Amino acid sequence: MYNIGIDLGGTNIAVGIVTKEGKVLKKTSVPARAERPFDQIFADMASCIRQLFAETGIKESEIESIGIGTPGCIDTEKGILIFAGNFKYGKNIDYRAEMAKHFDIPVYIGNDANVAALAEVRAGAAKGVKNAIMITLGTGVGGGIIIDGKIFEGAYSAAGELGHIVLISNGEQCSCGRKGCWEAYASVTALVRQTKAAMLANPDSIMNKTPLEQVSGRTAFDAAKKGDKAALAVVDQYQEYITEGLADMINIFSPEVIVVGGGISKEGDYLLNPVREKIKSRVFGIGLLPDRKILPAELGNDAGIIGAAMLHA
Amino acid sequence: MYNIGIDLGGTNIAVGIVTKEGKVLKKTSVPARAERPFDQIFADMASCIRQLFAETGIKESEIESIGIGTPGCIDTEKGILIFAGNFKYGKNIDYRAEMAKHFDIPVYIGNDANVAALAEVRAGAAKGVKNAIMITLGTGVGGGIIIDGKIFEGAYSAAGELGHIVLISNGEQCSCGRKGCWEAYASVTALVRQTKAAMLANPDSIMNKTPLEQVSGRTAFDAAKKGDKAALAVVDQYQEYITEGLADMINIFSPEVIVVGGGISKEGDYLLNPVREKIKSRVFGIGLLPDRKILPAELGNDAGIIGAAMLHA
Repeated sequence: MYNIGIDLGGTNIAVGIVTKEGKVLKKTSVPARAERPFDQIFADMASCIRQLFAETGIKESEIESIGIGTPGCIDTEKGILIFAGNFKYGKNIDYRAEMAKHFDIPVYIGNDANVAALAEVRAGAAKGVKNAIMITLGTGVGGGIIIDGKIFEGAYSAAGELGHIVLISNGEQCSCGRKGCWEAYASVTALVRQTKAAMLANPDSIMNKTPLEQVSGRTAFDAAKKGDKAALAVVDQYQEYITEGLADMINIFSPEVIVVGGGISKEGDYLLNPVREKIKSRVFGIGLLPDRKILPAELGNDAGIIGAAMLHA
Repeated sequence: MYNIGIDLGGTNIAVGIVTKEGKVLKKTSVPARAERPFDQIFADMASCIRQLFAETGIKESEIESIGIGTPGCIDTEKGILIFAGNFKYGKNIDYRAEMAKHFDIPVYIGNDANVAALAEVRAGAAKGVKNAIMITLGTGVGGGIIIDGKIFEGAYSAAGELGHIVLISNGEQCSCGRKGCWEAYASVTALVRQTKAAMLANPDSIMNKTPLEQVSGRTAFDAAKKGDKAALAVVDQYQEYITEGLADMINIFSPEVIVVGGGISKEGDYLLNPVREKIKSRVFGIGLLPDRKILPAELGNDAGIIGAAMLHA
């Protein structure tokens, strides 16, 4: 038996057939075009699944579950999307019923950040770990809480909005409506903002070789590795912001492992070693307990597919 | 069968015989005198238990467990105190072995804030709730996480240090060594500091009827209820600090209930109604989900005894 995982993003829909061990056997993707009516998006998902059946020779009867990872707040028991902040999908959409129009296979849904965390615990950086936290640094700061090997969802499946804890009370405006959230400082969006400000303030910085409108999360990191002072300061401050939030995570959860995902996590030790050092003086019982591990994510973009495929159990 | 709960505080040791339903049948207490060698403190606990046996006629054979709630970081499996921040008990103390010198009854230990949370979920304000958070506003800000009706402890039983999440990065010095912790703003210790500052800045405030050295958590609340402007501002700002941290708790855990304990929680709705109002615009998905309940603790000082008595299951 196999499981199908669908990573329903704002830009792309990625669909894969996944083995019990968390290997993606075959995958495909289509543009999400999220402004469309929802039934069209689901019809595209179904087409992707049929395409994968055709390409692999695997049959519908060999599929145990279809899992969908989606942005937003969901009712996992009912399989309903309650709302999705940044998307136009609307409110109270019955994912399970919509997918049932196409296949006679049990459907499970999960929040995308939670699903990525599940993948990393079942088949990635935190494999075999019981209690772990995953933080995804991207457009926002996503969070996933794994307790006893399972996603912890809380009431209304609304737990795990870890990017929306306050870092500086009444600080920077966050997209969620609150001010001073961790996301407003530690997301890649925030890093780009911080990088641009440093470029404007430091005309001599080699970061200015990049046109302002092309600045990405990599701009400051690339220049910092070449010894650019302004870039080093941006990276150090960004690591400071990451550290503060991760220290909160340790003081709250004392997880065995924190997995850091998102494109910027590919910087690996260059990003995380200073964080691991800085965090030592921020965790409760300074120096009295072993360090909790902070590891880069291993599954990259496939985490969404793999985790969704594992939602059934 | 009954259970014995011991609330081992820095000032007093409170010991009680507790029914299965969480009623304290009989209790007693002695000064902790925490500077003493540890075996003397345990001998006092044992004397208290024997005194309760004598007063109630209950026998050792009728006691299922002895539970001890203690400050500090513990190894609940081994029954060992790893360290206790504010106390002089020392490190790596084997509570279980020490109590076994006195009674042949299974011994369980738990962090004091966790134990209080367990009591409120089993027999108090959050009775019957599966997922709840308890915050205790006192000398510090204590936290307890209840997931699926049980204490969530994390690695090294170090989870739940909820007072040590950052409210203002690099802000006020916290007793834990970090700067800007929630505890440094929302503890009663912090409230007293804030009250004194407001008194000095507002010589006309009726708060100044209280000598500076006698200021307590009640000073600003009492004056605010009489309409004193400076006191109203102190209370409002204090509620703001509480709100910011509780909003974090909702965004992290989406608990069904948050229980607020500590002496100041006796202010009830006067303390909590403004918090319940302020929090609406700080939680993720503003206005889209039902309010999570914020309730004052019900068990008061007995929570430590009751929760400790329930550590066995």
